[in-house]
Amino acid sequence: MADHLSPDSRSACEALDRVDPLFRARDLFSLPGNTIYLDGHSLGPATHAALKRLEATARTEWANGLIRSWNDAGWFDLPRTTGRRLARLIGAEDNEVIVADSVSVNLFKLAKAAAALAEARITLVEPGDFPTDQYVTQGLGAWAHLSTSDGINALAKSDRSVLIKSLVNYRTGEVADMAAYERAAAQSGSLIVWDLSHATGVLELRLGDMGTKLATGCTYKYLNGGPGAPAFLYARADLAAVMTSPILGWFGHAQPFAFDARYQPADGVGRFAAGTPGILSLAALDAALTAFDGIAQADIADKARRLGNLVIDRADDLQLEILSPRDARLRGGHVSFRHDEGYAIVQALIARGVIADFRAPDAVRFGVSPLFLRYADVWDAMDHLSDVLRLRAFADPRFRKQAKVT
Amino acid sequence: MADHLSPDSRSACEALDRVDPLFRARDLFSLPGNTIYLDGHSLGPATHAALKRLEATARTEWANGLIRSWNDAGWFDLPRTTGRRLARLIGAEDNEVIVADSVSVNLFKLAKAAAALAEARITLVEPGDFPTDQYVTQGLGAWAHLSTSDGINALAKSDRSVLIKSLVNYRTGEVADMAAYERAAAQSGSLIVWDLSHATGVLELRLGDMGTKLATGCTYKYLNGGPGAPAFLYARADLAAVMTSPILGWFGHAQPFAFDARYQPADGVGRFAAGTPGILSLAALDAALTAFDGIAQADIADKARRLGNLVIDRADDLQLEILSPRDARLRGGHVSFRHDEGYAIVQALIARGVIADFRAPDAVRFGVSPLFLRYADVWDAMDHLSDVLRLRAFADPRFRKQAKVT
Repeated sequence: MADHLSPDSRSACEALDRVDPLFRARDLFSLPGNTIYLDGHSLGPATHAALKRLEATARTEWANGLIRSWNDAGWFDLPRTTGRRLARLIGAEDNEVIVADSVSVNLFKLAKAAAALAEARITLVEPGDFPTDQYVTQGLGAWAHLSTSDGINALAKSDRSVLIKSLVNYRTGEVADMAAYERAAAQSGSLIVWDLSHATGVLELRLGDMGTKLATGCTYKYLNGGPGAPAFLYARADLAAVMTSPILGWFGHAQPFAFDARYQPADGVGRFAAGTPGILSLAALDAALTAFDGIAQADIADKARRLGNLVIDRADDLQLEILSPRDARLRGGHVSFRHDEGYAIVQALIARGVIADFRAPDAVRFGVSPLFLRYADVWDAMDHLSDVLRLRAFADPRFRKQAKVT
Repeated sequence: MADHLSPDSRSACEALDRVDPLFRARDLFSLPGNTIYLDGHSLGPATHAALKRLEATARTEWANGLIRSWNDAGWFDLPRTTGRRLARLIGAEDNEVIVADSVSVNLFKLAKAAAALAEARITLVEPGDFPTDQYVTQGLGAWAHLSTSDGINALAKSDRSVLIKSLVNYRTGEVADMAAYERAAAQSGSLIVWDLSHATGVLELRLGDMGTKLATGCTYKYLNGGPGAPAFLYARADLAAVMTSPILGWFGHAQPFAFDARYQPADGVGRFAAGTPGILSLAALDAALTAFDGIAQADIADKARRLGNLVIDRADDLQLEILSPRDARLRGGHVSFRHDEGYAIVQALIARGVIADFRAPDAVRFGVSPLFLRYADVWDAMDHLSDVLRLRAFADPRFRKQAKVT
């Protein structure tokens, strides 16, 4: 028996939807009909605001404003102004966040700069964290795995290291104890670079209170920034001021348009910008973030927990092997279960308009994005899953051909 | 007396426009009225194709297709498919170019990987090249300036170095002798990373024939990809196969969606991809490149030379100090002149609808993009410049306040 109470019928779900403080947020999204989208943890859907802004940025600012829009439309400041919007969502100070590059590039910049600052000898990564966390670490020279089971203790005993760590595990949705990791790092003179990709926009993050020093994260998942939207980069003000990015680009210069031959870093986190920002993608993200205006992160996190509990309770009825923590406080915004036919199950669901995703070798992930999903949607999705399993719909040969992107 | 013949009246310009093989290309662009845009070397204007594609990518592929578009709309392959379009414009093989990241990040990746391959001890840069070329070099550790006057000889005598070199100087428009630099590099076991930002889309580049090994360049100038559009990265196939990017991201993996914990580089240049590509910006670029379909690069380069000659001839009449080479074969797509009041002159021109730009401390740049500029446009722009100087319009106080972006 679970230690929580989930709705036990569709009408109970509808009743929850009627009193949901986030219910109106769904209207902000441009969602296709006849679809239940359980993949907001991979690619968030478009908001009307992002689509409108993109059109204005392209047709008004680019086509008509041309080069003048760098000043007149605020393009030049966009990495910082969008960073400020993001800072409010993650509990950081306004001047501690910029939007720049990708998570991969930002992990690299932060880990390199952190290694120099901490005089670290080695970069660590936990075996189960996202592939990019693994790959960036492997590209940094001396590296090792930090044991998943004994991670925090091993970190406390390491001698000056840099750890690249996912806050929410991409496969299981498990949330790491950020404050405990930071305490362990402090004991050994180590620094942690957090990958917040699966956390931002669905957990209540208070980086300023959790001891977080350095982080980056994806903006195209729960932040709905658009496909491949640029990542954010957070460096606590006291650290940013004494760090040097390994990639000295002109947008990280104190005065890019002075065309000074000698590099002078911008104040604070701005020095981690490198090249010219992709304005079209950045503008869409900036507008997408307005969906969070006036909404408490605590309400978002609470609804994600409740929706996740509903998925787990109904998955239990189907006797599925749950990979995610049952304690909702230890879980991010997606719930995973293991199944040998996971790939085909997801394809069968997609054919029914229920879009979930699959992660090799055998994990099915149901993302429960709180802003646009209703309790009734999740109920219906679980009905479909039940049918797919009961009817063995996954055995259909057309669901077995592996696509490039799953 | 110049060694070329420029049109000597507006009607002579109109006559040239009537027989210009590129005249119809202007119709592909969405240009504002009452504007002469001499800044395509900084931010190319929007094409109808790019605007249309951006809308389809956002409204159809993202909003309706959602996560499925990674497969169904070809997002996953876009860095390579757009790379192939670009390869044809620069005389590279289809599999030698990808679109990824920014010029700054690509210079860093290529220079680091080149240094490892060549066992180079030092990174070199010429003093007058673009600030990002300078800054990235300064971030790489051991570095030095390569003398501008004796660059090629000094490079031939250096012992295993990496040189970051602009093909077209951002200030003067001067074109370096790429083949001669490559020969000098080969003599000393050095490798050159070319910054083709001010060259691509306006010069006739045949990288395969010029001995070019490694290059990156901007796509938002003469390629009209949109503000901050992602850069391209070229690595000759034989080199790419044996190089390792310092930033190992999941999009550079041989099988990104295998979620393999161990990094395995993609074949060839694909290994230089890092994070998830910004699809909105990339799609706009992909469509923008169709403006070059069916057009000979030789015709583009030829018209740029003729338009540049026209600017110089009329600037001579105004007794301006020309910073660009007078020999059109040594010049890219922009012409610069020096003036103490350069900033205010540009502002006065912009107020008249002639958009040129300024580079500190004193260079005024007129970009002569061949695809959308008519000879008559350039003639009219020079009339405006003549008026601004004659009437001392630049002395107006409202033209003196320095904006962030010039």
